[in-house]
Amino acid sequence: MQPSSNPVRASEVVDALREALGAAVVSLPGEFAGRRHADSSRMPCAEPIALLRPRTTEQVATALRLCHEYGQPVVTQGGLTGLAGGACMLGGEVALSLERMNAIEEIDPVSATMTVQAGVPLQTVQEAADAAGFLFPLDLGARGSATIGGNLATNAGGNRVIRYGMMREQALDVEAVLADGSVVGGLRKMIKNNTGYDLRNLLIGSEGTLGVITRAVLRLRPKPRAVSTAWCGVPDYASVTTLLRLAQERLPAGVSAFEVMWPGYYDFVLSRLPELRAPLAGRHAYYVLLESCGADPESQAAAFEAFLADRLEAGTLDDAALAASETHAAAFWAIRDAPGEYGRLIPGRVSFDVSFSIADVGAAAQRCDARLRERWPNATILIYGHLGDGNLHIVVQEPDWPATAVADVKRVVYEVTGEMGGSVSAEHGIGTKKLDVLALSRSPAELAAMRAVKAALDPRGILNPGKLLA
Amino acid sequence: MQPSSNPVRASEVVDALREALGAAVVSLPGEFAGRRHADSSRMPCAEPIALLRPRTTEQVATALRLCHEYGQPVVTQGGLTGLAGGACMLGGEVALSLERMNAIEEIDPVSATMTVQAGVPLQTVQEAADAAGFLFPLDLGARGSATIGGNLATNAGGNRVIRYGMMREQALDVEAVLADGSVVGGLRKMIKNNTGYDLRNLLIGSEGTLGVITRAVLRLRPKPRAVSTAWCGVPDYASVTTLLRLAQERLPAGVSAFEVMWPGYYDFVLSRLPELRAPLAGRHAYYVLLESCGADPESQAAAFEAFLADRLEAGTLDDAALAASETHAAAFWAIRDAPGEYGRLIPGRVSFDVSFSIADVGAAAQRCDARLRERWPNATILIYGHLGDGNLHIVVQEPDWPATAVADVKRVVYEVTGEMGGSVSAEHGIGTKKLDVLALSRSPAELAAMRAVKAALDPRGILNPGKLLA
Repeated sequence: MQPSSNPVRASEVVDALREALGAAVVSLPGEFAGRRHADSSRMPCAEPIALLRPRTTEQVATALRLCHEYGQPVVTQGGLTGLAGGACMLGGEVALSLERMNAIEEIDPVSATMTVQAGVPLQTVQEAADAAGFLFPLDLGARGSATIGGNLATNAGGNRVIRYGMMREQALDVEAVLADGSVVGGLRKMIKNNTGYDLRNLLIGSEGTLGVITRAVLRLRPKPRAVSTAWCGVPDYASVTTLLRLAQERLPAGVSAFEVMWPGYYDFVLSRLPELRAPLAGRHAYYVLLESCGADPESQAAAFEAFLADRLEAGTLDDAALAASETHAAAFWAIRDAPGEYGRLIPGRVSFDVSFSIADVGAAAQRCDARLRERWPNATILIYGHLGDGNLHIVVQEPDWPATAVADVKRVVYEVTGEMGGSVSAEHGIGTKKLDVLALSRSPAELAAMRAVKAALDPRGILNPGKLLA
Repeated sequence: MQPSSNPVRASEVVDALREALGAAVVSLPGEFAGRRHADSSRMPCAEPIALLRPRTTEQVATALRLCHEYGQPVVTQGGLTGLAGGACMLGGEVALSLERMNAIEEIDPVSATMTVQAGVPLQTVQEAADAAGFLFPLDLGARGSATIGGNLATNAGGNRVIRYGMMREQALDVEAVLADGSVVGGLRKMIKNNTGYDLRNLLIGSEGTLGVITRAVLRLRPKPRAVSTAWCGVPDYASVTTLLRLAQERLPAGVSAFEVMWPGYYDFVLSRLPELRAPLAGRHAYYVLLESCGADPESQAAAFEAFLADRLEAGTLDDAALAASETHAAAFWAIRDAPGEYGRLIPGRVSFDVSFSIADVGAAAQRCDARLRERWPNATILIYGHLGDGNLHIVVQEPDWPATAVADVKRVVYEVTGEMGGSVSAEHGIGTKKLDVLALSRSPAELAAMRAVKAALDPRGILNPGKLLA
């Protein structure tokens, strides 16, 4: 399953592709000079032997049929915002970009669905949903360039998973081209459809290794009419989980975000980013950004405030600040969104995207912190996450590290993840970046089952070889 | 992939099973005389050549390893409440019942999860969740005998899909034994876990053809503290979908049920079941049972009533009755739950479980009704469904039908389903009952991909042969 680099065969398949699809679809290296090929993972990336930019599902099918025939490896590319190296070339591949399949084909307000081509940017979908009176709930920092196809290929998560689920829960159907050029998925708008194996969920999250997703029917949600936001100081981890559980049980509109920040993170971003303001006067063991989105502004606001008062009284909260305006809420979110400034603040950092059961997140964070501190007492260690989903982000950096330290840091965190039955990739996927730690979260029998499925659907191993499964 | 019936081999494998697992686990036909083997589908069912009742995942693994070695077909059985024939024997199979794997292993209130063995009845799970202060939302009529393993194997739906999703959305992880005896799934409690292919969703809904689900981590939800229920008379189909959309957008606690009944259904059940009372004085084009479940009794009830008043004013509703008590709400539900009495009321009926996009449900119902009426002007035709999910149930009967009419009735309804891009099985699955119409909802390329996955994970075709895929 390693990419081919036989130049004779490569030139043959490129000729065949160019003949079948034309020069408008198939570009040669001289014709795409200067183009960026790597995703946002900082993993190595080679140049493709040709760049394919099809406009239709039929063209994708023709391209894969020929690549299958020639055994030519293909890397599918969306907005190149992935963090695991899934869209990078290892050498010898054809790049298949869905950038020209970027139409919103239909919005069906009665069925609350949007049918889109894979190359539409996430933000375009969000804006079109909003204009039609709906919410498309998936949201993440790279929304402007990340595409729906990439969101599907990686089963993207982001900020609102606690309420709306990951990308898998936002798609009613996907159309995809399999390795041999056959097209599956019917763009059906059904919420319930028990007709055989779940090919849709098999394709979603397969990181381009089982098929090329070309179109999808997205599910739209009612647009929330009121947002309540609070910044909370919490005395201990048991209180953090109690707050989460009671908020889910008692807030009339439920919980749409429950972001937890450890003090190391909070102190670091407040001291380094002077534009941020501390929402509360004191220091606390944990900080929680709590958000509830619903349909009824008045009753919701009153219930939200009463809930906080009750929790202050009960001692679950040390202190809390209620956002009095959208600007105020945005100032709370700015503290949580500070990782957008990491490039400038902490170069050379090692970042983790892991998950645990909600009961284990506190202990897992503590264990990682303690073991990292033991070896690197002066390191910057930032811990925060979407606690409602069990998703923990950990960032580690020390200014004068030797290059070898990165591997050591990874070993420490992934060992804890393995010990505590966590996931080495909560939302970013495996790509090439986490191939070496996948076995900490998946048993040999599971990896064997995945390889069997891969071999069944892509017998020549042409789809994104060397990614997701080693 | 047809079941084997070679008596020599069969006796060999039974001997091997009995030797490996003992007579306490492996019973021979003389030892289980009188036991019921068929599910609730009314499909033909043979006797198994042996009955296996393992107590552990290891015993299931040993059993499948031996069956794989001998090429011995296996039918897995849960509570035998399936409606598609998925648990019936075709002849020559071993029956593998999970009835002794019926323990609730753990309830984790912090992670809001319950770890169970596959043989636990649904109602036992519901009651244990309730006792722990949570809701397990999956609910269906057969709750007392249907097991969680069967619910998973068929991706069961039921009454609350509009709010909580189908069974797939109630399981964070499943443990399963594959055809060769290998065990996959780690009973992980993570909500986010992007580590490779979605084996969990591939196994869920595979009707025992890809693996035997042995244990699962179920997701628990906050228990609703208030239920608002109304019976609505609606003037036309556009108003039905408007009512749904606005209820989802405006009710503070959202919509937990949206059951639509056509007048033919309403008139039939009210005239035949004297214990039922008409909730409204007049006749209407459509009847809707609307329910909203939430956290805040006072604000929710006021908002629910105001919403109904507003819709009466706007003309979306002709009339509406608000349930003033739980008894009153139960009387509304009794009208919707009348299909429980079909056995007595309409013997010889033909029943359908199909789905469409929400926008198409009205037209699909009309088209089915018109084409059926054309051929059978005096037939009883009952139409109702979970409209919020696009799920339509149609029941057809005529007292003096010849036996051949059943096939003709099916042809009419499934043809409409195919024409309108619907699903031939919204929630009951394929089993053997819908094998002949699966191709109306799945393309040849999709069926080929499913067969490739089946062959990859069960190369000898021992798991529930002849089911789901012909």
